[in-house]
Amino acid sequence: MFPLNAWYVVARPDEIGSDKPLGRRICNQPIAFFRNSEGVIGAVEDFCPHRGVPLSLGFVRDGNLVCGYHGLAMGCNGRTVSMPGQRVKGFPAIRSYPVAERYGFVWLWPGDAALAREEDIPVPAWHGRSDWAVGGGLFNIRCDYRLLIDNLMDLTHETYVHSSSIGQKEIDEAPVATRVVDGLVVTERYMEKIKAPPFWQMAMESNGMDKTATVDRWQICRFQPPSNVLIDVGVALEGHGGFEAPVDKKASAIVVDYITPETDGSCWYFWGMARHFKADDAALTEAIRNGQHVIFSEDLEMLERQQQNLQAWPERGLLKLNIDGGGVQARRIIDELIARERAAAAS
Amino acid sequence: MFPLNAWYVVARPDEIGSDKPLGRRICNQPIAFFRNSEGVIGAVEDFCPHRGVPLSLGFVRDGNLVCGYHGLAMGCNGRTVSMPGQRVKGFPAIRSYPVAERYGFVWLWPGDAALAREEDIPVPAWHGRSDWAVGGGLFNIRCDYRLLIDNLMDLTHETYVHSSSIGQKEIDEAPVATRVVDGLVVTERYMEKIKAPPFWQMAMESNGMDKTATVDRWQICRFQPPSNVLIDVGVALEGHGGFEAPVDKKASAIVVDYITPETDGSCWYFWGMARHFKADDAALTEAIRNGQHVIFSEDLEMLERQQQNLQAWPERGLLKLNIDGGGVQARRIIDELIARERAAAAS
Amino acid sequence: MFPLNAWYVVARPDEIGSDKPLGRRICNQPIAFFRNSEGVIGAVEDFCPHRGVPLSLGFVRDGNLVCGYHGLAMGCNGRTVSMPGQRVKGFPAIRSYPVAERYGFVWLWPGDAALAREEDIPVPAWHGRSDWAVGGGLFNIRCDYRLLIDNLMDLTHETYVHSSSIGQKEIDEAPVATRVVDGLVVTERYMEKIKAPPFWQMAMESNGMDKTATVDRWQICRFQPPSNVLIDVGVALEGHGGFEAPVDKKASAIVVDYITPETDGSCWYFWGMARHFKADDAALTEAIRNGQHVIFSEDLEMLERQQQNLQAWPERGLLKLNIDGGGVQARRIIDELIARERAAAAS
Repeated sequence: MFPLNAWYVVARPDEIGSDKPLGRRICNQPIAFFRNSEGVIGAVEDFCPHRGVPLSLGFVRDGNLVCGYHGLAMGCNGRTVSMPGQRVKGFPAIRSYPVAERYGFVWLWPGDAALAREEDIPVPAWHGRSDWAVGGGLFNIRCDYRLLIDNLMDLTHETYVHSSSIGQKEIDEAPVATRVVDGLVVTERYMEKIKAPPFWQMAMESNGMDKTATVDRWQICRFQPPSNVLIDVGVALEGHGGFEAPVDKKASAIVVDYITPETDGSCWYFWGMARHFKADDAALTEAIRNGQHVIFSEDLEMLERQQQNLQAWPERGLLKLNIDGGGVQARRIIDELIARERAAAAS
Repeated sequence: MFPLNAWYVVARPDEIGSDKPLGRRICNQPIAFFRNSEGVIGAVEDFCPHRGVPLSLGFVRDGNLVCGYHGLAMGCNGRTVSMPGQRVKGFPAIRSYPVAERYGFVWLWPGDAALAREEDIPVPAWHGRSDWAVGGGLFNIRCDYRLLIDNLMDLTHETYVHSSSIGQKEIDEAPVATRVVDGLVVTERYMEKIKAPPFWQMAMESNGMDKTATVDRWQICRFQPPSNVLIDVGVALEGHGGFEAPVDKKASAIVVDYITPETDGSCWYFWGMARHFKADDAALTEAIRNGQHVIFSEDLEMLERQQQNLQAWPERGLLKLNIDGGGVQARRIIDELIARERAAAAS
Repeated sequence: MFPLNAWYVVARPDEIGSDKPLGRRICNQPIAFFRNSEGVIGAVEDFCPHRGVPLSLGFVRDGNLVCGYHGLAMGCNGRTVSMPGQRVKGFPAIRSYPVAERYGFVWLWPGDAALAREEDIPVPAWHGRSDWAVGGGLFNIRCDYRLLIDNLMDLTHETYVHSSSIGQKEIDEAPVATRVVDGLVVTERYMEKIKAPPFWQMAMESNGMDKTATVDRWQICRFQPPSNVLIDVGVALEGHGGFEAPVDKKASAIVVDYITPETDGSCWYFWGMARHFKADDAALTEAIRNGQHVIFSEDLEMLERQQQNLQAWPERGLLKLNIDGGGVQARRIIDELIARERAAAAS
């Protein structure tokens, strides 16, 4: 249950080398990724047309993906280039996929290639800005990707799941508002005159602020179809405008959540943080990455056990409270995209 | 294939704290157990009515079970008590179960709550007796609970499975008799003028007896519906009346076997021993517990592989010999209970 | 999808002792193997007629297989010999299988016992020859046994899978020819005036030859129904007749590949090498065995991932190139055997 005519993040660029391919399942489809001689990424079905072994067990030579079993050389376009001792012209092609390397990630279009336009890949706010720094990691989570979207569009869970780092009672107490603007879903929460939780105290200190100061805190979750969530987060010294405060009066960032279905019941989670302070400090990038790794790991058991429970009790309805508005609206958009694809396929 | 309108042992009291809940599947139903402010145990479906996560991943606060995802507080009765920022009156209730703490165990009634009467929980022979001591442990076994009942109602397996501890050739050679009395099944075996096997030599020595003496040995297996087996076991110095011998002439005990279905193909086995000698010796309780742990572990592979074999060959009939009489009668009673439940449900 | 009326290698003789049985699944059938008092091997269903546990969990006593649960003693013919306290004449028999110990292996006939003739077990070329030495090992591979036959009948994979040991570019470049002779499939490849790859350099050195010399190399794969592949392999000093060269001018051997279905999707692979040089050198046998273990391990991931891919894409056709001729012909013979069995069963 996911749109196929969409761009999904499938890898970080350094995961795909020019010597070894990467095998990864995306939207139920096993795919082999590799770089050709120009460094351009190719994405083909992970199925050698000769004997059906995964091409991702092979290697890259002269810009082609060579099968590790009998040496068939596959091009980026899914057509066999050569094979020792064989004429390959009549070999059946395998499927190739539109793939693009943009904004620090590799994107794949698993649907109808004729509809793929690279310029539709959304440009992140930090792109081309030297005063921002980005770091992150990857989790494979055994849950429907939509459960992770729900998770990220309702940050009240921070109070419970992340009580020792970014959670605080005030999140629960602050009202939340959800609106849909131009096909995006925005869920906002503002907490004024509070003490920063541990993670943000660290960030304030890193930015030369008094970590014990009273702050205004914000969380602005933005859902982008098909499945990404970018969250403006931060704290500013009390009374300086919050989200709009000058850089030296706040510690602010965007939580990066690129989410891609692996199967119907599992997903890839490219998480990270783009921060708007001390962008030159690589050690800080690493420290934040490690901190996020610990914090985001706390969600895994909850999400995977939720998936198991929902599979065991498929007939049960769930509540849709005000705090769930972001997830509810995001699913509505996803459902519309899927319905539109099906209608187009049927006609 | 198990009765639902029955009391099952589901935990030891110290497994259920007043800070963290316990999640455990009983008769195919995932259940969260916790203690309220008065220390009374609650048992509710392990499914938060908000988003479906297991409540057992949460914590206990003010006597309510708080969901670890978004803070919904659940009461013992399956009704939501509160949730930050929400009115909860209209929230759907989840199922709660009759549960009781009696005789050193926690008991659950997974069936129709209207039929549950705590006074039906059977009182064990050692209850309230300071000259008895009890110890034990818990196994999760991937076999139908009835295979474990068969195992315990036919102790000829001791000669083979437990040859180095409690087994001895004389068990095989002694005749066995099975009778059904008032809905209980009793299978008895008496071995006279024999040498005690290693486990019982240890017990004799603990009780100040000559471990090399000739003894009369008994095994009286008592099946109690729905699925428990209590076994009078012991040895007495030859000619002193066996089971009826005075305390200083025998070493006697009851093997405790409370068995509860987890799923159709797995069960919880609360095993232990209640002994009627040196009741004050805590170190002996521990030593016996450790010994039983080793001995009862010897059954696990046999039971789990038996389960696999029976699943693979479902059409095969099994032999029902005289030694199998206890298990056969126990299953007859279980079948009657299930049939009666179904007839009542249909009418 | 395998013939049942055929002899399959199921064990090495030293795997079946006269004290403990061996449990092994052959052609989807769980079987217990043991030796009677004369050392003759028995093979019976791994299912005790009493309570259905695996007999292979028991032990051997007085030449019978004694069940480890309640002591039923089973004979080689599948009939119960005795059981403590029981009359066993009326006990149902379990299936027993024709089994034979020949040529250094244990062979089983999983089909109609009336058709089994021990003299049909093929005599290997090295049998009774003191100038040959044999060593080997066993793998359990989670792939259809026919994928392993394909693998062994097309050694072009050595160039890719075993590039650091026995593979070399010349294998790819040498033409290959397949022919079917008297129900056997032979696939041959000859490489003249080449350098030996590492494994064969070691063999040449062991045989007192200059390992850097130019050689003629051969690979003659012989498929024997139902599922075995014996491969003449070796190198001879250039111009001495290759396969036909005198013993001191060559290093030659037969790669032993006895393959037996375990289930529809897994197989037992009894691999080894019979060599025709330095037959008295036990250390060399061990060194070759260790080398083969490393090399043949390189195939496992490829085969198991191929199996997964073919199961995921069952509708996909595979290419049948000239190099695949050996596997294609072997499968044709296998299909004929299966069809013949079915026709006989239907009539």
